[in-house]
Amino acid sequence: MVIQTTRRISAMQQIDHIDLETLSALGRGCAVLGTGGGGDVGSPLVAVAHALKERGPVPVVRLEDLPADALIAPLSGIGAPTVSVEMLPGEAEVHRLRAEAERFMGRPLAAVMSSEIGGSNGVEPVLWASLLGLPLLDADGMGRAFPEVQMVSMHVAGLPVNVVILADLAGNVTTIQPLDGNWSERIARAVCVAGGATALMADYVITAAQAKGAVIEGTVTRAVELGRATVGVADPLSSLTEALGARSLVTGKIVDIERRTGGGFVRGSVVIEEIGGRDTTPGRLVRIEIQNENLAVFEDGDLLASVPDLISVVDTQSALAISTESLRYGQRVTVLAWPCDPLWRTERGLEVAGPRAFGYAIDYVPVEEIGARLV
Amino acid sequence: MVIQTTRRISAMQQIDHIDLETLSALGRGCAVLGTGGGGDVGSPLVAVAHALKERGPVPVVRLEDLPADALIAPLSGIGAPTVSVEMLPGEAEVHRLRAEAERFMGRPLAAVMSSEIGGSNGVEPVLWASLLGLPLLDADGMGRAFPEVQMVSMHVAGLPVNVVILADLAGNVTTIQPLDGNWSERIARAVCVAGGATALMADYVITAAQAKGAVIEGTVTRAVELGRATVGVADPLSSLTEALGARSLVTGKIVDIERRTGGGFVRGSVVIEEIGGRDTTPGRLVRIEIQNENLAVFEDGDLLASVPDLISVVDTQSALAISTESLRYGQRVTVLAWPCDPLWRTERGLEVAGPRAFGYAIDYVPVEEIGARLV
Repeated sequence: MVIQTTRRISAMQQIDHIDLETLSALGRGCAVLGTGGGGDVGSPLVAVAHALKERGPVPVVRLEDLPADALIAPLSGIGAPTVSVEMLPGEAEVHRLRAEAERFMGRPLAAVMSSEIGGSNGVEPVLWASLLGLPLLDADGMGRAFPEVQMVSMHVAGLPVNVVILADLAGNVTTIQPLDGNWSERIARAVCVAGGATALMADYVITAAQAKGAVIEGTVTRAVELGRATVGVADPLSSLTEALGARSLVTGKIVDIERRTGGGFVRGSVVIEEIGGRDTTPGRLVRIEIQNENLAVFEDGDLLASVPDLISVVDTQSALAISTESLRYGQRVTVLAWPCDPLWRTERGLEVAGPRAFGYAIDYVPVEEIGARLV
Repeated sequence: MVIQTTRRISAMQQIDHIDLETLSALGRGCAVLGTGGGGDVGSPLVAVAHALKERGPVPVVRLEDLPADALIAPLSGIGAPTVSVEMLPGEAEVHRLRAEAERFMGRPLAAVMSSEIGGSNGVEPVLWASLLGLPLLDADGMGRAFPEVQMVSMHVAGLPVNVVILADLAGNVTTIQPLDGNWSERIARAVCVAGGATALMADYVITAAQAKGAVIEGTVTRAVELGRATVGVADPLSSLTEALGARSLVTGKIVDIERRTGGGFVRGSVVIEEIGGRDTTPGRLVRIEIQNENLAVFEDGDLLASVPDLISVVDTQSALAISTESLRYGQRVTVLAWPCDPLWRTERGLEVAGPRAFGYAIDYVPVEEIGARLV
């Protein structure tokens, strides 16, 4: 198998459907791209596998396969992962959400897209596509996971958010026509918390023509590739690190976790002590700060990596990614960091999801530049 | 002028438009029916008067004037009165709300109704009707004011809430299709708080046929009558008390107020010490408990009146009603209480807005029965 270290996928390698084998790889890849968030992938996998067994593989399409006016619904779960991991994905919500999206747009949907490829939000769209009998678009709105509603490529690309639709587990459907992306986060978060802190959401409903340049293409294929890189190889960690083009920031043991759920988010920090290095001196201490996702990594006050670059905590042996709500004291982990999609490095991209968008008074430095400096 | 002590209005007395004179009476009457809530009437009166001067009187229609399938939008402001009293009513929100209501229903609105006749929510619909060029229905959804979204006659009558639409001052429009009335309150309140703690709301959009038996008719006329009863008379308090068919619970001075704004509500209590009675003994102390509206009146632990019956604090001299956010230490006031619409005394009515719906572990006793007992 050929693994690419860049994000560009050639036409030959693009997957054209999700079956049971692909699903398993997709799950592992999405966990890595989740950078700790987007929901634990383990929880929806059973339901998605059941759907694939029942209704067959889900077709995967590319933008160029769709007519210009075809409607795409970018879908995701919204809420604190500590809550959504406890909730089984329901079937009724997605039908309610589709009905409302089609009522709002006045015509039928043509495809489902993952709003964020990271975590369970990269996996569950396969279930939703299967339930709705629609293809899945080989693209997403982040190329990773981010905690807030407005942190999507469509917003960075300047597409006004026409609609945000939430369907909660109780059966409520709420349709928001927000003034802008920031309002979409504020109101959708409030609706999500009021409806039980977890809901199914369509953030925008867009045409294929609008999606061009405003979504990150090829990320379903990319996630499957990353998942495949960790299976059947002698050294999964090296294989994954190479496939990602990542820097390894530290290999060690989790020695401290502080984590709380509130306002619809998981927030906190985790400290990793290096092991396996210079064995007579105390190990380096590396701290990761979290808001659903891993946001920034510090060592002795120095920044090692930050959003929008991707930071993932993986099991050192299996290279399986560990979500922020599954981090436990004593786990042996490696912290990987790698460059985000170029879209996030534009001025507007950094405005939306750079360190300052998360309250850090630091300037963004691309992870590969920090690496070059440290070496 | 003939004042009726019952809520039934004969056809002869029904008003057929709101002009400047009627508006002034409407404002005073709505303040009384607001039982302390529904927003201070003073704040919107200028804007409504300006609209009437500019575009002429607003026609008032009855259900029987409308075709069975005519669409009625019950409108109100939602939020803490302490916030909304600071905000001038805007014009853009009601146009945005109408556009969304018509999009949702697929056809044009025929009339505007006040969701609650009490307080500014009984007055502002005149402005909204004027701005939209629609008639105002001589009816409302409470016959008074209540603090929560589901506390409307349509809900008591068993009409499933098809839609709740909120338009906030920032420009966001949110459309909720709630599972039931309780969810409508929970989600609408969250959206309201997220959007700045005040918003314009359509709670249900109903046809004239659905409205029959599910709205409280004649309440615009009733409010105008009550307002007229306090002007140009020697003893406004007696005239109002008679027009209401009310009991006077205490006349005295406000000696204590505790009031806070949070979660979209004003909550607290006010204590009134009787004056003008037995002059050598200490005056009786009467306590009113508040959640936007006056909910219950106690004296030495005994209930004197409670929701859903109406409790209004009025200025002892002028008989002008005082809203809960305008209560001040030292004000000379009289507390009046009178029977609610029979709809609120049904089993379902008491479930929705009886004392237990507000967290009081007491059984409802009609105010006239408590009165008979005390006498």
